[in-house]
Amino acid sequence: MTDRILDFLRRTRPEGPCLVVDLDVVRDNYLAFERAMPDSRIFYAVKANPAPEILHLLAGLGSNFDCASVQEVDMALVAGASPDRISFGNTIKKERDIAAAFARGVRLFAVDCEAEVDKVARQAPGARVFCRILCEGEGAEWALSRKFGCDPAMAVDVLDHAHRAGLVAYGVSFHVGSQQKNPHAWDAALASAAEIFRILSDRGIELKMVNLGGGFATRYLEAIPGEGEYGQAINDAIRSHFGNRLPETIIEPGRGMVGNAGVIKSEVILISQKAEGDIRWVYLDIGKFNGLAETMDEAIRYPILSHRDGEATPCVLAGPTCDSVDVMYEKKPYPLPVNLEIGDELLIAGTGAYTTTYSSIAFNGFPPLQSYVI
Amino acid sequence: MTDRILDFLRRTRPEGPCLVVDLDVVRDNYLAFERAMPDSRIFYAVKANPAPEILHLLAGLGSNFDCASVQEVDMALVAGASPDRISFGNTIKKERDIAAAFARGVRLFAVDCEAEVDKVARQAPGARVFCRILCEGEGAEWALSRKFGCDPAMAVDVLDHAHRAGLVAYGVSFHVGSQQKNPHAWDAALASAAEIFRILSDRGIELKMVNLGGGFATRYLEAIPGEGEYGQAINDAIRSHFGNRLPETIIEPGRGMVGNAGVIKSEVILISQKAEGDIRWVYLDIGKFNGLAETMDEAIRYPILSHRDGEATPCVLAGPTCDSVDVMYEKKPYPLPVNLEIGDELLIAGTGAYTTTYSSIAFNGFPPLQSYVI
Repeated sequence: MTDRILDFLRRTRPEGPCLVVDLDVVRDNYLAFERAMPDSRIFYAVKANPAPEILHLLAGLGSNFDCASVQEVDMALVAGASPDRISFGNTIKKERDIAAAFARGVRLFAVDCEAEVDKVARQAPGARVFCRILCEGEGAEWALSRKFGCDPAMAVDVLDHAHRAGLVAYGVSFHVGSQQKNPHAWDAALASAAEIFRILSDRGIELKMVNLGGGFATRYLEAIPGEGEYGQAINDAIRSHFGNRLPETIIEPGRGMVGNAGVIKSEVILISQKAEGDIRWVYLDIGKFNGLAETMDEAIRYPILSHRDGEATPCVLAGPTCDSVDVMYEKKPYPLPVNLEIGDELLIAGTGAYTTTYSSIAFNGFPPLQSYVI
Repeated sequence: MTDRILDFLRRTRPEGPCLVVDLDVVRDNYLAFERAMPDSRIFYAVKANPAPEILHLLAGLGSNFDCASVQEVDMALVAGASPDRISFGNTIKKERDIAAAFARGVRLFAVDCEAEVDKVARQAPGARVFCRILCEGEGAEWALSRKFGCDPAMAVDVLDHAHRAGLVAYGVSFHVGSQQKNPHAWDAALASAAEIFRILSDRGIELKMVNLGGGFATRYLEAIPGEGEYGQAINDAIRSHFGNRLPETIIEPGRGMVGNAGVIKSEVILISQKAEGDIRWVYLDIGKFNGLAETMDEAIRYPILSHRDGEATPCVLAGPTCDSVDVMYEKKPYPLPVNLEIGDELLIAGTGAYTTTYSSIAFNGFPPLQSYVI
């Protein structure tokens, strides 16, 4: 919640729910990551928030870009990144999209199975590939499934296969889970990565890079480690597993880069009870389908600010659509001031990442979340 | 899966995932509802699929429209519905949106608390309101939360309050849960509605209408009741609770009107295993964030067709995004042919409702689901 954002909202009074992102905070975050991990290259996870102003700022600061699709590759290029600063980090790619990225000059691709290697070998000959391995993700608020990555034993075969297919078997990646609050969560995966490096080295294949993924937490309601704490824990783990043969490293912050740079302005549409004496239901003009998708299963708990200063009591918080699942906090109700009124403005902090793009195109006729980058 | 849809896909071969809706099926569904419930007015739930062609067809057939927002009201008007055929059915409305709908001629509004009544009384003087009551929703696949409606005892006060505020206390509504496969699910709510009619009648307020909501199932994998079965069970329940003083009734089919009219064409991007001998993961170019949101918690299980005829084994089915929750069927894997190949086309049936509009605007850079109405 920065003064620039508050000033902007006061001055422009935008109609309807909207996200406001403060670029100064993004810049500070980028510089903090650089300081904390000076030996790692930063690949911003574009999917967290692909606003052109953010990409342009980061491109100017020297950031690289982790892209999930050809569309995101194009956004990074338009923002001023050269193709050698782009990673096509999605392990699930249409073969024609690999070809399109290669035609644009992209030479770094994620894989997690031999079939994907074959596609890259056909459409991006000579490119570098890194293999994603499965990782527990314990301690993350937005936990990872087994969707991405393969067993470390299989990763050896996948990278060997890539080498034999004429690609550069370049490294190993993993992801410890988004909003990972344990800086030591990287340790086990780094041990696996080091083991893969050793086995392949014995076969004459020298891997070069470890992609440490994202997972760096942003501040919601609870305290989180600073960039420095992450950096220290990760560097210690790298040294303990790789000894003196340190690999190149990449990090892919998304939420950690932009989460705390954004604030959503919302309006209270209705306050009601289901029966006399029941808990209050507070309905906002924003919900699961126009920006707050990450409240799914009440995973992410955002700080919510009101100008009212009355005593607070727990409320169920819900969105504006005619959809019964569009309820944000119910299992663990959210304390809001008892003197809150219909028409009041609420500010939802920490919403710079994973909000605008999750927004549905027109569910219930409501427009997607507006965004202002200042 | 109609011949017209198959012909369209063969002829036009659209690039990328897309939904194709056959208007002939929508027309058949409308006529079937009319036959099954000749005494009820049909209000199509626009949110299920607001494609202009669908709204235009239904307007021409004489349908009314249940709208969740001013935007949906405008869509219905553009499609040719007069304002007296529109219900603003969302119980959560901004006061300025009530005013906007009133200005367009809308005179029927949903409420479920006194605060909402006050808004309607201020902005839509003299309008008709119906009060939504809570309903169990047992037996529904897309279960309802307590988000909408109030306790029946409170509904009496809400409607009384509306009457005293100069509005027409018009009726009672409820919703038995989407994809409700038990035609007797309406019985308990109708008993509550009849009780509310009696209590208010004793106070000199004569309610006129019962809004039976939606919930009519569409055919996915399991057999469902026909429109006729729903009609019979509901009419029996109305007679048993209201005797000879039958109310006007409204139904609001959404899924039941368009669900089986649509087919999504998708492409297999990747087939892989996480370790030797593991279950196969099949990745499509469509997932939770570009159309199949209702696979959330594996709630809706769509029929999926392949031209391959090999033996089928269970697969985990996932979408194309770099998001770990973008997995459709994992707890209960989906059987797909063992000879399925990367690049194969799959047809996902029963996808005419609640797909295009749930689609995210650009998550991971992927465009929203394309739609063709034929």
